[in-house]
Amino acid sequence: QINSDRLWDSLMEMAKIGPGVAGGNNRQTLTDEDGEGRKLFQSWAEGAGMTMGVDTLGNMFFTREGTDPDALPVYVGSHLDTQPTGGKYDGVLGVLGALEIVRTLNDLNIKTKHPIVVTNWTNEEGTRFAPAMLASGVFAGVHEEDWAKARTDAKGKTFGDELARIGWEGAEPVGARKMKAFFELHIEQGPILEDEGIDIGVVTHGQGLYWLQVTLTGKESHTGSTPMPKRRNAGLGMARVTELVHETAMDFQPNAVGAIGHVEVYPNSRNIIPGKAVFTVDIRSPSKETLEAMRERIEDGIDTIIDAMDIAAEVEVVGHFDPVTFDSTCVKAVRDAAERLGLSHTDIVSGAGHDACWINRIAPTAMVMCPCVDGLSHNEAEEISKEWAQNGANVLLHAVVETAGV
Amino acid sequence: QINSDRLWDSLMEMAKIGPGVAGGNNRQTLTDEDGEGRKLFQSWAEGAGMTMGVDTLGNMFFTREGTDPDALPVYVGSHLDTQPTGGKYDGVLGVLGALEIVRTLNDLNIKTKHPIVVTNWTNEEGTRFAPAMLASGVFAGVHEEDWAKARTDAKGKTFGDELARIGWEGAEPVGARKMKAFFELHIEQGPILEDEGIDIGVVTHGQGLYWLQVTLTGKESHTGSTPMPKRRNAGLGMARVTELVHETAMDFQPNAVGAIGHVEVYPNSRNIIPGKAVFTVDIRSPSKETLEAMRERIEDGIDTIIDAMDIAAEVEVVGHFDPVTFDSTCVKAVRDAAERLGLSHTDIVSGAGHDACWINRIAPTAMVMCPCVDGLSHNEAEEISKEWAQNGANVLLHAVVETAGV
Ligand SMILES: NC(=O)NCCC(=O)O
Ligand SMILES: NC(=O)NCCC(=O)O
Repeated sequence: QINSDRLWDSLMEMAKIGPGVAGGNNRQTLTDEDGEGRKLFQSWAEGAGMTMGVDTLGNMFFTREGTDPDALPVYVGSHLDTQPTGGKYDGVLGVLGALEIVRTLNDLNIKTKHPIVVTNWTNEEGTRFAPAMLASGVFAGVHEEDWAKARTDAKGKTFGDELARIGWEGAEPVGARKMKAFFELHIEQGPILEDEGIDIGVVTHGQGLYWLQVTLTGKESHTGSTPMPKRRNAGLGMARVTELVHETAMDFQPNAVGAIGHVEVYPNSRNIIPGKAVFTVDIRSPSKETLEAMRERIEDGIDTIIDAMDIAAEVEVVGHFDPVTFDSTCVKAVRDAAERLGLSHTDIVSGAGHDACWINRIAPTAMVMCPCVDGLSHNEAEEISKEWAQNGANVLLHAVVETAGV
Repeated sequence: QINSDRLWDSLMEMAKIGPGVAGGNNRQTLTDEDGEGRKLFQSWAEGAGMTMGVDTLGNMFFTREGTDPDALPVYVGSHLDTQPTGGKYDGVLGVLGALEIVRTLNDLNIKTKHPIVVTNWTNEEGTRFAPAMLASGVFAGVHEEDWAKARTDAKGKTFGDELARIGWEGAEPVGARKMKAFFELHIEQGPILEDEGIDIGVVTHGQGLYWLQVTLTGKESHTGSTPMPKRRNAGLGMARVTELVHETAMDFQPNAVGAIGHVEVYPNSRNIIPGKAVFTVDIRSPSKETLEAMRERIEDGIDTIIDAMDIAAEVEVVGHFDPVTFDSTCVKAVRDAAERLGLSHTDIVSGAGHDACWINRIAPTAMVMCPCVDGLSHNEAEEISKEWAQNGANVLLHAVVETAGV
């Protein structure tokens, strides 16, 4: 059993770094606050007797040695970066839960056969630099490292420059490590577990995703003196695509979601008809077939919309992953752990993307989920109970120790 | 006849201050660039022998004395501020055209009975500080001066502080001046004159306007893991209001226009369902009845939209003027001037708001319009020919001199 007070105190301590404006956090990737959070985590992990490795994308690995020098390590962790208006648990629970496992094993003087490596992946959220799960994606061979380093934020700063600036560019090549398995604990970010009063989600699958960045180009002109038939309103085009995305997701219920979270309108003046609109469509489904059908419907719909309005569109895929099926042995280890601990559990599909989704391509992987209040996440009001965190970390402990052997 | 080369050179010289990124201008009100433009204008106006007055809102008045010391001055001018991606002529032609009149009268050694006052009104565009035509509105008694000074830009800076910062807060009380008449030359900003090959628009009326700033409040949550039925998507609400505004304007064709030019979505992250959207609806009509009917339709429509989506709305009027009927004597002076100069002309309604629309409430007022290429304005590509500028300024000269007497 993990020490639930210690886990909670660490969560609250980390939340002091990059506080938000409404009780949550703004500790976006590769900001000064991210750097500070990493340092705090480092001090805790080294204090627990682990040794640090950092790769050239800033992914952090803390190793607790095993008894068998030749055995592949079991990796466990998540991410410390947050949304601009994020919560205190999204990602952080997975990193500090992993740290708590090691602290607990230290307390109990338990040695595992396989080493345990506690991990913090860089830029999971993808808000500052698209796509999400960027550094774990490179680790898993999905993206090129150079491409990742060249990704830019809204101010034109690159991932590579910002990583160097905060001093967390390591020397180790990305993806060089081999894993026996990877486990990630995460809050559900959806309402199922809380609604059904269940302690633990055993994550069997993850939804697939497309992020389609759409640029619509019309013509800037005066809102007062341009006759309606002469308008080429890129903002109106964006509104129509927003409705299209919503309708498409509704038509594929309950196996689909879709929304537009990020929009920019140019020149964004009250009395100028928007000449340009740039926005990102986020569509997801646990079914690859559905996901592709949604994308096709949306791309066709955009064509119809722009033809009718005499505006132009460019569509770029800035994020994509297929639906994921996690490793059955690892999933079973999670389910068995919940069972052994007497916790209620159900198999669920992750609605969000996670580093585990990429790592699953190169190592046996599974995830543990605990409820969050109202299913709310990506909101400063994101909340969990101490007991939920404890249950999740205990399941993680048992799954990891079973896999690492004693 | 005015000196068309001199007018054109002045326009090009002024356009060097606050250049845009695509051949136009970004000389927004109360920026350093606005201050610089004012200084250049001052040097020219004083060079033409006029004396400056500046009021506490930064409105600039340059007086050319008349022969009758008791006669009320004829005012003539427009504004030097631009849109963030504005053209070189919107407003500027009206100020420098007025200056050119005085230069021409100086050349010809003509004295008028009534003094002539060349004017630059502060913050006509309304992009940085809503509403548009802010300082002429205070001058005309429509707004309170304190209220105007407290208006804030997107960064929270106030009009009053920014005016003081650029050093253009004068001592003269706003609205203390009495006028015999006010004339404003402006580019049409619409396509009618060019399409019909007509030299001069005799502006008989101006459209009325509402700017409705709408704040929709839903709930921030995760785009992936929030089930569709649980979403309270303020961005989707904004899309629906955008379509509503468009449909409303289309239903009142050809006597109405409507669009949304300014939008902000919070927190504006690709994987967060927008919890808040703030945007400004711009609706206009030459008929007060139509304008009010549009407003009602849109406010009712917003209620229907938010009820269906479980989101909240606040609607604030941040700009409003009724349709305007200009003074028949001044309008006749403009029409007669065009006639006398042998220029083709037609009566038109101004699609945009202008300082003249407010001044018309306190003094006999009229406007002269000249064509602009493609009817395009509020776009850096805004363009006019030297001849169009010349025709407009000549009509302005004759209308002003006729009204001021010789
Ligand atoms: N877990 C999480 O919020 N990840 C961010 C990537 C996504 O949008 O799913
Ligand atoms: N003339 C002009 O563009 N004025 C700005 C105010 C408006 O939007 O009509």
